[in-house]
Amino acid sequence: MDYGSALEQIREAIRAQRDEGRVAGYIPELAQVQPDQFGMSVVTLEGQVHSVGQAQVRFSIQSISKLFALVLALQSEGDEVWTRVGREPSGSPFNSLVQLEHEEGKPRNPFINAGALVITDILCSRFAVPENAVAEFLQKACRNPAVHYNERVARSERMHCDRNAAMAYFMKSFGNLRNPVEKVLDAYCRQCAIEMNCEELASAVMFLANGGRVPWSGEVVLGSSMTKRLSALMLTCGTYEAAGDFAFRVGLPAKSGVGGGIVAVIPGECGICVWSPRLDEAGNSSAGSAALELLTTLTGRSVF
Amino acid sequence: MDYGSALEQIREAIRAQRDEGRVAGYIPELAQVQPDQFGMSVVTLEGQVHSVGQAQVRFSIQSISKLFALVLALQSEGDEVWTRVGREPSGSPFNSLVQLEHEEGKPRNPFINAGALVITDILCSRFAVPENAVAEFLQKACRNPAVHYNERVARSERMHCDRNAAMAYFMKSFGNLRNPVEKVLDAYCRQCAIEMNCEELASAVMFLANGGRVPWSGEVVLGSSMTKRLSALMLTCGTYEAAGDFAFRVGLPAKSGVGGGIVAVIPGECGICVWSPRLDEAGNSSAGSAALELLTTLTGRSVF
Amino acid sequence: MDYGSALEQIREAIRAQRDEGRVAGYIPELAQVQPDQFGMSVVTLEGQVHSVGQAQVRFSIQSISKLFALVLALQSEGDEVWTRVGREPSGSPFNSLVQLEHEEGKPRNPFINAGALVITDILCSRFAVPENAVAEFLQKACRNPAVHYNERVARSERMHCDRNAAMAYFMKSFGNLRNPVEKVLDAYCRQCAIEMNCEELASAVMFLANGGRVPWSGEVVLGSSMTKRLSALMLTCGTYEAAGDFAFRVGLPAKSGVGGGIVAVIPGECGICVWSPRLDEAGNSSAGSAALELLTTLTGRSVF
Amino acid sequence: MDYGSALEQIREAIRAQRDEGRVAGYIPELAQVQPDQFGMSVVTLEGQVHSVGQAQVRFSIQSISKLFALVLALQSEGDEVWTRVGREPSGSPFNSLVQLEHEEGKPRNPFINAGALVITDILCSRFAVPENAVAEFLQKACRNPAVHYNERVARSERMHCDRNAAMAYFMKSFGNLRNPVEKVLDAYCRQCAIEMNCEELASAVMFLANGGRVPWSGEVVLGSSMTKRLSALMLTCGTYEAAGDFAFRVGLPAKSGVGGGIVAVIPGECGICVWSPRLDEAGNSSAGSAALELLTTLTGRSVF
Repeated sequence: MDYGSALEQIREAIRAQRDEGRVAGYIPELAQVQPDQFGMSVVTLEGQVHSVGQAQVRFSIQSISKLFALVLALQSEGDEVWTRVGREPSGSPFNSLVQLEHEEGKPRNPFINAGALVITDILCSRFAVPENAVAEFLQKACRNPAVHYNERVARSERMHCDRNAAMAYFMKSFGNLRNPVEKVLDAYCRQCAIEMNCEELASAVMFLANGGRVPWSGEVVLGSSMTKRLSALMLTCGTYEAAGDFAFRVGLPAKSGVGGGIVAVIPGECGICVWSPRLDEAGNSSAGSAALELLTTLTGRSVF
Repeated sequence: MDYGSALEQIREAIRAQRDEGRVAGYIPELAQVQPDQFGMSVVTLEGQVHSVGQAQVRFSIQSISKLFALVLALQSEGDEVWTRVGREPSGSPFNSLVQLEHEEGKPRNPFINAGALVITDILCSRFAVPENAVAEFLQKACRNPAVHYNERVARSERMHCDRNAAMAYFMKSFGNLRNPVEKVLDAYCRQCAIEMNCEELASAVMFLANGGRVPWSGEVVLGSSMTKRLSALMLTCGTYEAAGDFAFRVGLPAKSGVGGGIVAVIPGECGICVWSPRLDEAGNSSAGSAALELLTTLTGRSVF
Repeated sequence: MDYGSALEQIREAIRAQRDEGRVAGYIPELAQVQPDQFGMSVVTLEGQVHSVGQAQVRFSIQSISKLFALVLALQSEGDEVWTRVGREPSGSPFNSLVQLEHEEGKPRNPFINAGALVITDILCSRFAVPENAVAEFLQKACRNPAVHYNERVARSERMHCDRNAAMAYFMKSFGNLRNPVEKVLDAYCRQCAIEMNCEELASAVMFLANGGRVPWSGEVVLGSSMTKRLSALMLTCGTYEAAGDFAFRVGLPAKSGVGGGIVAVIPGECGICVWSPRLDEAGNSSAGSAALELLTTLTGRSVF
Repeated sequence: MDYGSALEQIREAIRAQRDEGRVAGYIPELAQVQPDQFGMSVVTLEGQVHSVGQAQVRFSIQSISKLFALVLALQSEGDEVWTRVGREPSGSPFNSLVQLEHEEGKPRNPFINAGALVITDILCSRFAVPENAVAEFLQKACRNPAVHYNERVARSERMHCDRNAAMAYFMKSFGNLRNPVEKVLDAYCRQCAIEMNCEELASAVMFLANGGRVPWSGEVVLGSSMTKRLSALMLTCGTYEAAGDFAFRVGLPAKSGVGGGIVAVIPGECGICVWSPRLDEAGNSSAGSAALELLTTLTGRSVF
């Protein structure tokens, strides 16, 4: 089935499930989002854009920003990044801190909060205003200079990040954070508060489906080997502690955020973004996961 | 580059690394294996067999047997299997028992020892002699009725499995083991002691590259959706606690064993087996991992 | 206040609390005990016996047996015992197995199950029938040759000890269990199934209040220094994970069991036993703990 | 043996051991202390002062301050304190954070760092300058208005407290810290940097040996029941993760600090302080522990 027909069918099928799960409630700004929204976009390497639902409504990208922050860190540090953060799934979250202790302050991967804080620390050493560097990367990647973080959301995140502060100080005690904790948290909260819509995010991840090159400009974001590796990392670690289950059901490299967005790629074919605010227990969009599972079922495409 | 040329080049490249790592030493039978052996086979769906090195020498398949035991369990129980064992990577081994406690006796996935013991327990409920069921499956899958377990190795394993006994009793205390622990351990140790060579194992996993069908007979081992899911599970959980790193470097669904073997598949193309007894710290064949990484680099094939 | 008056007052005060907590239910034999029973005995070094309630009714001593098994092990091995088991409180039970793993199979103290299994293993190496050795020690210590284990209770325990089997095999995998697991578990379950009453147990611990000597015979059970040390161990580790709270409230060296019994000593003064089957969340007798707290309040006696 | 003779004998005996262990090195100010010093004081309730060695040399009391901070918190909040901090030994330090997570931000006892931070938070809510409140309590308790914290040491501690900051933010994320983390850490580091000598500290703990009353003034610091309970807490939790072993060997309520000081009490008899900078692996003074063990052996006094 082609992508356009598949999206239409997904829109219908998902209608019944849109009330499963709960919107992220740890900050008021996220809790107030109208919960039953749903949007999805597929942008093919040939340039076709297929969208359904609220694909033009911007939402808080949250942890999806970790993907782009990592790309910037890899561009500037290359494989040195892996001396400070691992590449293994993190297991269940109940033992995140004990794992961090056992592994002496080296987080398991760059997509858990601890790992993303280290990546932001790397960006803090490299860029004067790291959150702007992430935003600028995204402006270029989706060809829209209006992409920015929401300062009100960022401030609210910053006031509710005691646990991230705990992890940051803990890693600092092991020497794995170089900049002041306050500065890293500022940048981290702002990068999480970037707002984009499905079409923009589907465009922004296309280079991952295209061997590291932006299709319309030919610009090399990452080398082809590093691009494949990053896709592997998304598959094994991109959707919190449900990554195994997500790979099992969906079979695509993906990265999710608690704003309800999930980006994914089909190598050689397209960039994808789905958004719906209600989350399952692992923190991934309920309707979004179901939509992606249906997409791979209907089109017969997955990496396996 | 075609598979034949790639294998030749791998054979040369690997020569320099063959002395990295150490042979598994927990039982004398494995410790006595001549350590510098290396063999590799690729069997394409069209039936071409490419082999280099000691691809006809049989070795102890060990944990690779977990893959085939799981296939049998899925054939007989379907998705019911997942009520007793999870589908998530297990994190680092240091907390395997605490995770098992936290998750009330449900192992994280069928490829860690705890999960494989549950799968064997399922087979014990279904088959009179479960180890024979696994062996018979493999005889058919590789068209060689001579495939069998080595009784001497099995007995030695059985005498050195106190930790597996601990996990089995622990899961039994949560009600997640139905047969007597002694019986499950007997079957488990025998299935681990099955001996095969690279060509046989590369043939035996071809159905995974072919949507669940045995290419030469057309027999359906698993449905195509379940086959993709099993591949996803191999990618996220198939190589012990190094699965994330393995996916990152190699990018293929794979399952390894401490006998030094690793099976892998390229969906739509071929079954692969590599063998070399020296292991890295995670328990995967050192030369085997390097060979697979080189194969995906030289041929440009991976799932990403 | 003298002990006799204190016991009378305790009997009255405890009436209101006798229905707090729940009887141990993991084996039918313990679950069937009539729950509202209460007995208490104080036996002074001068030989006075003060008892109230069902102080002559025998009950299953369960973990109280760990105290006497340890005494036998110390008699035969002396301080060598501490090379195989520690002397530290165990923290919360949720991480007992991870602690055992972290500390490479050496249990934290001889009063948690893992530690008691090591002590029983020591007795298995020393005595032909270790459970009889414990029973004989108790027969002499309380001057009643009728003290014995209940075979029916022992068998039932043996059928419900998967978790103890898990710990035993786990320690065996570290080399800290020398005898066959089955033999150790047999002896362990039988020693737990010994039945005694409050007067017998209060007598049996008198040597601990008397510098290691049995008061009526002068027999030296342990040296005075070792006796003090054993009392310290009871104070810090004798009442499961509530030992800190128990020391805080009661302030006496004590050892409890899930049969509802608690033994305690006031150094230089008396042996004490209280019994009431309902347990609090930590597994200590609810009414028994309250009674001991009241005893130290009313008499002004505690070690502090 | 009387205390005076015992101290003389201890001084001789300890000479041979004074080079065991290592001085705390995590801040330069502590690392620079001349390591082979030794002082010890016993102050009886009758007012006799027995001292040997460098009993008049002031040292950094460090974690001994946790005892006095707790006394102030108990004076102002009574048993409400126990709603925010537990009374159980903490097990081995390797899992301190996971325990804190498991117990939802409630530290196991007020003598581990996490618990002491909560106590300091309580003092921050009660006193304008909590570190001064602790110092003033000590000035009165030892009748010396010159007792104060060393600002240079406090500043150095403050610059090396990332792990304490991590724990403070972690507890704040559970709602168990009410004041700003920065303020709590300032007060905490200053209270740890208070400097006293053996005679002053032995005097300062005398109320604990005297049912809660200051012997020379009759002032009631704590009620007699609370005093006994605090002694019990010192016995089970006062010497880091070695509390069980310390109770086993010494048998006295005690509190140690990484400055090399240990205070202890013999109920009804005396206050004790010993100081020697070299620490064992658990962070307790090596010579200090040996001296206290010898004291109880020579005098026959312990709580057991």
